[in-house]
Amino acid sequence: MKFEVTILGSSSATPVYNRNPTAQLLNCNEKFYLIDCGEGTQQQLIRYGIKASKIDYVFISHLHGDHYFGLIGLLSSMHLNGRVKPIVIFGPQPLLEILELQFKYSETVIRYPIEFTAVEADTSVKIFENNDLTVETIILNHRIPCTGYQFKQKKRLRKLIIDKLEEDNIPHEYFPLLKRGIDLNLPDGRVFLNKDYTLDSDAPKSYCYCSDTLADGTYMEQIKGCTMLYHESTFLQEMLDRANQTHHTTALQAGQIAAEAGVEKLLIGHFSSRYKVLQPLLEEALSVFEHTELAIEGNTYTI
Amino acid sequence: MKFEVTILGSSSATPVYNRNPTAQLLNCNEKFYLIDCGEGTQQQLIRYGIKASKIDYVFISHLHGDHYFGLIGLLSSMHLNGRVKPIVIFGPQPLLEILELQFKYSETVIRYPIEFTAVEADTSVKIFENNDLTVETIILNHRIPCTGYQFKQKKRLRKLIIDKLEEDNIPHEYFPLLKRGIDLNLPDGRVFLNKDYTLDSDAPKSYCYCSDTLADGTYMEQIKGCTMLYHESTFLQEMLDRANQTHHTTALQAGQIAAEAGVEKLLIGHFSSRYKVLQPLLEEALSVFEHTELAIEGNTYTI
Repeated sequence: MKFEVTILGSSSATPVYNRNPTAQLLNCNEKFYLIDCGEGTQQQLIRYGIKASKIDYVFISHLHGDHYFGLIGLLSSMHLNGRVKPIVIFGPQPLLEILELQFKYSETVIRYPIEFTAVEADTSVKIFENNDLTVETIILNHRIPCTGYQFKQKKRLRKLIIDKLEEDNIPHEYFPLLKRGIDLNLPDGRVFLNKDYTLDSDAPKSYCYCSDTLADGTYMEQIKGCTMLYHESTFLQEMLDRANQTHHTTALQAGQIAAEAGVEKLLIGHFSSRYKVLQPLLEEALSVFEHTELAIEGNTYTI
Repeated sequence: MKFEVTILGSSSATPVYNRNPTAQLLNCNEKFYLIDCGEGTQQQLIRYGIKASKIDYVFISHLHGDHYFGLIGLLSSMHLNGRVKPIVIFGPQPLLEILELQFKYSETVIRYPIEFTAVEADTSVKIFENNDLTVETIILNHRIPCTGYQFKQKKRLRKLIIDKLEEDNIPHEYFPLLKRGIDLNLPDGRVFLNKDYTLDSDAPKSYCYCSDTLADGTYMEQIKGCTMLYHESTFLQEMLDRANQTHHTTALQAGQIAAEAGVEKLLIGHFSSRYKVLQPLLEEALSVFEHTELAIEGNTYTI
């Protein structure tokens, strides 16, 4: 099952040449989840040949413009391009008021339903679930209410050992039962033990998205052991005072958090516009956590 | 005196690859006037190496998103980049409410003054004047209130004929008077006639910006004889019904309007996303008005 994230923007606060404000597209089993939506996200989708119509879910972390100014344009274009299927949006409560005000004055009556759910920034709760994954909120600590998101794959069904099943002539109609871990006691007295015909499925993978936050580790429990952690790394450690003052994280701190949380992989982004070259940020995080990569626009990272 | 316009976006409604939504930057005597501000305008400024800090005036035509969704991001970045000097914004009254709502929820207290003036779409009035130009509104006919803008250079002072002035040893202190068209009757009885020492200045140039409108010509008086007319040309003439229905203009109609108004030059833009190649739009306008150019992003047109 595909589980990967494409970076559409990795700049903090203001865009700089070749870096757009924050936006990411998560692909889980060919369903598409947009995470944050800075200005120009719809242009980035076009640039990378991604159809906006594929997006069914949007998760906005907070109401600083570099994380949501692109949403009204994306929703408007979906409308103009004839979308009829609903879109599901999670974000801070006032987001809906902002969107509605702009639709009102453009006299736009959106053709498709917007299913909006307000998220609370001070509790961690499950906000979404489908056949593929669950989404829980992560409590972050920023200057305004800010929510991270944990996307966790569901435990898959057991894997069939086809060779063994064929060898013992086990009829196909029993396969769904075996996948669910059931032993078979047939009416004719034959017994097929599940353990002989199936293997455990892969461990469910998870992606934790921690946009703007002070690196105070209060969210440690929620990211512990995840497969891939995206963590903002706005500054180098030499700017620690500035990071604390603005409720942001340094690359070193992001690496330390990844190490402490025992995650498999770390992706760092939300780079300050002062950094034209990103290598020093990468090296700083790598110095404390080996499996770190930079969130580069247009790149897709397998979770 | 420099009087030129740089195209930052020429797409209608939705962005398409290589065409951003509408935005233009007028340079009049090294003062910068932003006309409309679609999503991604601040990225376009970066792309073309134009400092946003140079912009002191913004004119928004109407509240369809492709004409203003980029403004909140541009203003936010100006704030983050330390702007302190005021910015003057003209636009429909609700624009201020939309901006203020977004600043409120991001808890942004803008460091520089925003001097907002609401424009009325149903009257043509002078809304701005400085040493270089005057700006008057143009009444357009779109689905929602929509305002065009006429930027007209002021009549310059008369030009001195330096050789003649030196030949007759006329002191420098009289030059400002001569420039203003004054004849000199000196205390010693000498008389210097203005016509012998000065030439009339160049005729003032004007730029008329007609964003989204039905081509009903109701604004003909206001654009008559202007130096350069920017007129939207969303569709080809074969889409006339669609143009009428959506209150837009065809390239042929734009050419006809330019011809009827007796303008010197026509610039067409606001191209529908259905047109990947723009040449047919240009040819259609050229068939009725010779001095037509396409508004191509990144290009600067001398008025």
